[in-house]
Amino acid sequence: MPELRRDPIISRWVIISTERSSRPHDFVQVKPSRTISTGLCPFCPGHERLTPKEIMAYRPQPAVANSPNWTVRIVPNKFPALHVEGDMDREGVGLYDRMNGIGAHEVIIETPGHTESLADLPAKRIEDVLWAYRDRIIDLKKDPRFHYILIFKNHGLSAGATLEHSHSQLIALPVVPTSVLEEIEGCKAHHDQKERCIYCDILRQDIGDGDRIVADNSEFVCVTPFAPRFPFEMWVLPKRHAGYFEESQKAQFELLAPILSECLRRMNKVLARPSYNFILHSSPLHERTGDYYHWHIEIIPKLTQVAGFEWGTGFYINPVSPEESAKFLRDAEL
Amino acid sequence: MPELRRDPIISRWVIISTERSSRPHDFVQVKPSRTISTGLCPFCPGHERLTPKEIMAYRPQPAVANSPNWTVRIVPNKFPALHVEGDMDREGVGLYDRMNGIGAHEVIIETPGHTESLADLPAKRIEDVLWAYRDRIIDLKKDPRFHYILIFKNHGLSAGATLEHSHSQLIALPVVPTSVLEEIEGCKAHHDQKERCIYCDILRQDIGDGDRIVADNSEFVCVTPFAPRFPFEMWVLPKRHAGYFEESQKAQFELLAPILSECLRRMNKVLARPSYNFILHSSPLHERTGDYYHWHIEIIPKLTQVAGFEWGTGFYINPVSPEESAKFLRDAEL
Repeated sequence: MPELRRDPIISRWVIISTERSSRPHDFVQVKPSRTISTGLCPFCPGHERLTPKEIMAYRPQPAVANSPNWTVRIVPNKFPALHVEGDMDREGVGLYDRMNGIGAHEVIIETPGHTESLADLPAKRIEDVLWAYRDRIIDLKKDPRFHYILIFKNHGLSAGATLEHSHSQLIALPVVPTSVLEEIEGCKAHHDQKERCIYCDILRQDIGDGDRIVADNSEFVCVTPFAPRFPFEMWVLPKRHAGYFEESQKAQFELLAPILSECLRRMNKVLARPSYNFILHSSPLHERTGDYYHWHIEIIPKLTQVAGFEWGTGFYINPVSPEESAKFLRDAEL
Repeated sequence: MPELRRDPIISRWVIISTERSSRPHDFVQVKPSRTISTGLCPFCPGHERLTPKEIMAYRPQPAVANSPNWTVRIVPNKFPALHVEGDMDREGVGLYDRMNGIGAHEVIIETPGHTESLADLPAKRIEDVLWAYRDRIIDLKKDPRFHYILIFKNHGLSAGATLEHSHSQLIALPVVPTSVLEEIEGCKAHHDQKERCIYCDILRQDIGDGDRIVADNSEFVCVTPFAPRFPFEMWVLPKRHAGYFEESQKAQFELLAPILSECLRRMNKVLARPSYNFILHSSPLHERTGDYYHWHIEIIPKLTQVAGFEWGTGFYINPVSPEESAKFLRDAEL
């Protein structure tokens, strides 16, 4: 059973998940061997038996579970960071806190095509992936043990992908993570003072300034944030205030898919298909943060190293201004 | 002039330092070409003219500045993230905050030997490096513009080192970084409640438990923390409560050097000389945090990838328990 442990000083939780590897010799170096396997791909159609049994799939025609002919398929992670069965067993150990690593860890296989990346898919199929995210959140929200659901994507070796076939991941957590709490506290402080959402204020200023805009449609805008940690970091935000991704309207998903596609293609054009992470930031499941929290997607191309300075300070050194990155991204010919 | 910008939501500062590189094509991939140069090493004796003029050096015999025959040499970073000359010019831009990137960025060349790593040096020479850290902190503390000094080391390509010759870095910042503030707040909350230092409490519990101890002498102990972000993460702490590294006694530096050496050698033995970061955590310069903050050194071997999950949550997944890493490190035959 994985274990959740809390740092007593800064209250950050970590997952000690010793089943995923490992003996010291597994760490003798950061191993590309774990990644981009050349063997049988467990995410390809026809290999459904290589994954744990599917949780859900979209198929154009009705068919039995775990058969091919799906367009999007969701399976439990074969090497889960957290286990879905069991009790929390919260416990103090002297001054330390621990609990069992209860949670869900799922994989969203975005396409049957082994070599197709998310950016290569038509917008309509990206929309299906977004619907799949939503359907899983709606379902997992019913489990009262879960307090936060994170959906994210690691694309490419240096962004942490261990399999080449395009996929995203979902992790449902029994606690709200520290960095989400920090974001929410910042939003709440602004709302307490001004009775406005800080992201809505950011949107107004950024749309007015114009020089950090990457892409735009009637429902969404993509900006490079004013104080980005990383070069070419992008945020995609709904223009209308909304705390919960999963409560989006159909008409919004129809416009989120094309702007996401456009951002990824602009990034691929300017940076020659980099590795990247994308992360869905949405409200915690059981707290009413909807008045002041504003969901969004962060896209982080993996271009720089995070090193001692960043680990020591939480400060980041970014060698490109967001105005400059936005200009390059905006001007890219698609 | 580099620029400091603050994220309006979580108050994290970033440094926009566009002079250090870079045009988009510089980012087409994470380039090993920037690192481990095979040309003339600017840190080798005889090449003193390749660095900016030295700030300080230790030489066994008195000699002119910027001559060879030094044992430790400190120079300004040739590509500084922050500039030491100029005014802060704090400014609001709509809802955003910015200021000029004022600060110091120095390089501590730890040895004249090009291929010697810190772990290879005799303890007496590591002690000199510690004295050099201290001397620089004492000097920079006089400048009222600086609020925090971070000393850190990136060793090896994947830990962010751009030059092979063994060195550490010092960055003096005009603000106290968010993650340092978080640590201090955690310590203060514990002290407010119990009138004890939380690190002292941790030391008592860890020394009692014994299973997270890596190394130990009369003044210092090295532990793997209860909730480590990374496999084989180590903390070296003074046993006596002390908030400020630079106020350490001579007898303490004499015992810090050998334990630091031992930890690095144990790490090298178990993990086959990994890349690593080490970070000195000490009190901010102008706040009286000495009652509740406890300085320490964090050593982080670079073994795992930080990916979407970590960026999205501040949560870390660690595949090795700290009790297991401590055992491997403790049992290594040196």
